[in-house]
Amino acid sequence: MGTGPFGWLEDSARQRAREGRSRRLRPRGHDSAMLDLAGNDYLGLARHPSVTRAAAEAARKWGAGSTGSRLVTGDTTLHRQLEEELAAFYGSEDALVFSSGYAANMGAVTALAGDHGTHLVCDRNNHASLIDASRLAKAAGARVSLFEHRDCASAGSALADAAEPRRFLLSDTVFSVDGDRADVAGLARVCRDNGSALLLDDAHGLGTLGTAGEGALGDAGLRGAGDVLTTVTLSKALGSQGGAVLGPRQVISHLVETSRSFIFDTGLAPPAVGAALAALRLLREQPRLAQRVRASADALASELEARGQDAGAPQAAVVSLRAPSPEAAVQWAERCRESGVRVGCFRPPSVPDGVSRLRLTARADLGAAEVRHGADVIAASRPQPGE
Amino acid sequence: MGTGPFGWLEDSARQRAREGRSRRLRPRGHDSAMLDLAGNDYLGLARHPSVTRAAAEAARKWGAGSTGSRLVTGDTTLHRQLEEELAAFYGSEDALVFSSGYAANMGAVTALAGDHGTHLVCDRNNHASLIDASRLAKAAGARVSLFEHRDCASAGSALADAAEPRRFLLSDTVFSVDGDRADVAGLARVCRDNGSALLLDDAHGLGTLGTAGEGALGDAGLRGAGDVLTTVTLSKALGSQGGAVLGPRQVISHLVETSRSFIFDTGLAPPAVGAALAALRLLREQPRLAQRVRASADALASELEARGQDAGAPQAAVVSLRAPSPEAAVQWAERCRESGVRVGCFRPPSVPDGVSRLRLTARADLGAAEVRHGADVIAASRPQPGE
Repeated sequence: MGTGPFGWLEDSARQRAREGRSRRLRPRGHDSAMLDLAGNDYLGLARHPSVTRAAAEAARKWGAGSTGSRLVTGDTTLHRQLEEELAAFYGSEDALVFSSGYAANMGAVTALAGDHGTHLVCDRNNHASLIDASRLAKAAGARVSLFEHRDCASAGSALADAAEPRRFLLSDTVFSVDGDRADVAGLARVCRDNGSALLLDDAHGLGTLGTAGEGALGDAGLRGAGDVLTTVTLSKALGSQGGAVLGPRQVISHLVETSRSFIFDTGLAPPAVGAALAALRLLREQPRLAQRVRASADALASELEARGQDAGAPQAAVVSLRAPSPEAAVQWAERCRESGVRVGCFRPPSVPDGVSRLRLTARADLGAAEVRHGADVIAASRPQPGE
Repeated sequence: MGTGPFGWLEDSARQRAREGRSRRLRPRGHDSAMLDLAGNDYLGLARHPSVTRAAAEAARKWGAGSTGSRLVTGDTTLHRQLEEELAAFYGSEDALVFSSGYAANMGAVTALAGDHGTHLVCDRNNHASLIDASRLAKAAGARVSLFEHRDCASAGSALADAAEPRRFLLSDTVFSVDGDRADVAGLARVCRDNGSALLLDDAHGLGTLGTAGEGALGDAGLRGAGDVLTTVTLSKALGSQGGAVLGPRQVISHLVETSRSFIFDTGLAPPAVGAALAALRLLREQPRLAQRVRASADALASELEARGQDAGAPQAAVVSLRAPSPEAAVQWAERCRESGVRVGCFRPPSVPDGVSRLRLTARADLGAAEVRHGADVIAASRPQPGE
């Protein structure tokens, strides 16, 4: 064991190494020629000229940073415009932009549910940001129950058992690791049966679900529902950075006045705001982008299945392939990388069930030849049993 | 009381209105002619041509967003370059960039101190992000004690009373609301006497403290100290967005591998990374910027004192003026705004002592005439007793 107040970190690092859970950064170059099957830029808009031009223009016009909390100097008419267009796109009354999706979930959950008299009922596979937000709400007095993954009956009985006057059901719409989808309409029904509010994280649904990328709410016929609050990210389908909460005006006003991760954070930087706005407009102009990304995911899964890989049928833009061990997942991803294909490698504690896997993502601008090549490399790179 | 699962929010809003605690957004235009004495762009770099050009170039070269977690696709050589130059500037072994200062504090504290066997000893006026981080650490099993504001003896006895094997002292270096400073050298001493690590939030110290803006650590003779971890923001003196943790290499590696607000968040957008890097280089080239911002703050306080306002002697770039009530603070700020001067208006629960005040900030590029004009307007706008 090392010395000094951080000496214990050596043991901790050795322990992770023994368990195949070491991680390290691998900075990419700007002109990387690798085939990207790992990023969340689902619509391929992060480098779209209209989007990068909007980021550049916002920097010149508004500055590189917003200079303060949104409640002090960090709020601009550009933020307001993005919020109005996001709300209109979702059919919600209002929207509020945060500096990340993590901050949006943190801020929404703790401001609405961070006290006694509140009960949070959570899918047990929710994203880390919803888990951390629930933990913080619990520390402030809320009760938290988990329900079985994607199981509306389990959610309903947890809600029915909750005696607190304020109840919230929290779920991802598309679960990040496997890309599997919640039954949003079913969850909304059990919420209404129990007088509960529904809070959905549509980070991986915006731009990929629905006929025009309208996300999980529109797809489930819940556009504009007054008892549903949705969080989204600006950093996935919209190719930028940040997060937003969408919902009834009184909820958004409450967040402006009480949400700690909103009040005590610098407003999102203007280049990120401008880029997200430009991307949203592209999505409105090209509604078929959403269908294209789903078709890409379907094609990737089919090509993998044709090569003997158990990819299943994607429900959104994510395809996942299980690996026998964390070490095998790392080796698999590393071989893909050496062959020029970037894939996600997810291991405990970032996987809900303890099973390591490759996480692959589709993009609207992936060509058929790229999909076939990616599938070739991934299938050929799989470590063999006993290897 | 309203109806539906969000109906209770109406009562909550009415309660805040009764207590003078309502808040609302006021988006500013890009060509606002107001004198800004409220933002945290201390060095005036957010709109510096080199900084905005760097943001624009990063957008074109790398894209508007980073496309994923730093551990998947969101890490670029631009991020690494910023981290290397930040670490060199602070004299620390390594650095890690987060998407905000809030996320940096959250990530550092919970990854290092989020378990049994840890005791966090915290200044009771710490920033909300350190408080939220401490609450989350406590929920995971850590113990948390508060010490009296800026009181090294109180901190020392809290540490001496802590029986846990891992102890951390958490403090802002410059407290956000009043701009008062912690005795960093004194805190480091009590930490060493007690085998504790020191975690400092230098958000308001980077760029404003020390002969060349080197921040609170350099100013206290602690450059490169192996038992100190520092968080900074990229959104204040560096005019951009984001946060960073600076410290020993083994600590930074631990954060890469275990910090949830790092792992489960999209990497900082390239335009923000590029802008922060350009601003850091400007600060290195123009070391006197830090002295200029402090001289501005001194001048602002003197001009206010000369007009009968109790501004005191600023310790960094912030000047605060107490108001008799939340309503008076709002009225005071509103009158300043009507006269073309933007000031911060801080009320409960954003003030540590329950006392509402105006928070004024200096900038390195404030001219003497602007300072005098600002002081004129602020003094003339103060609500009179009984008004």
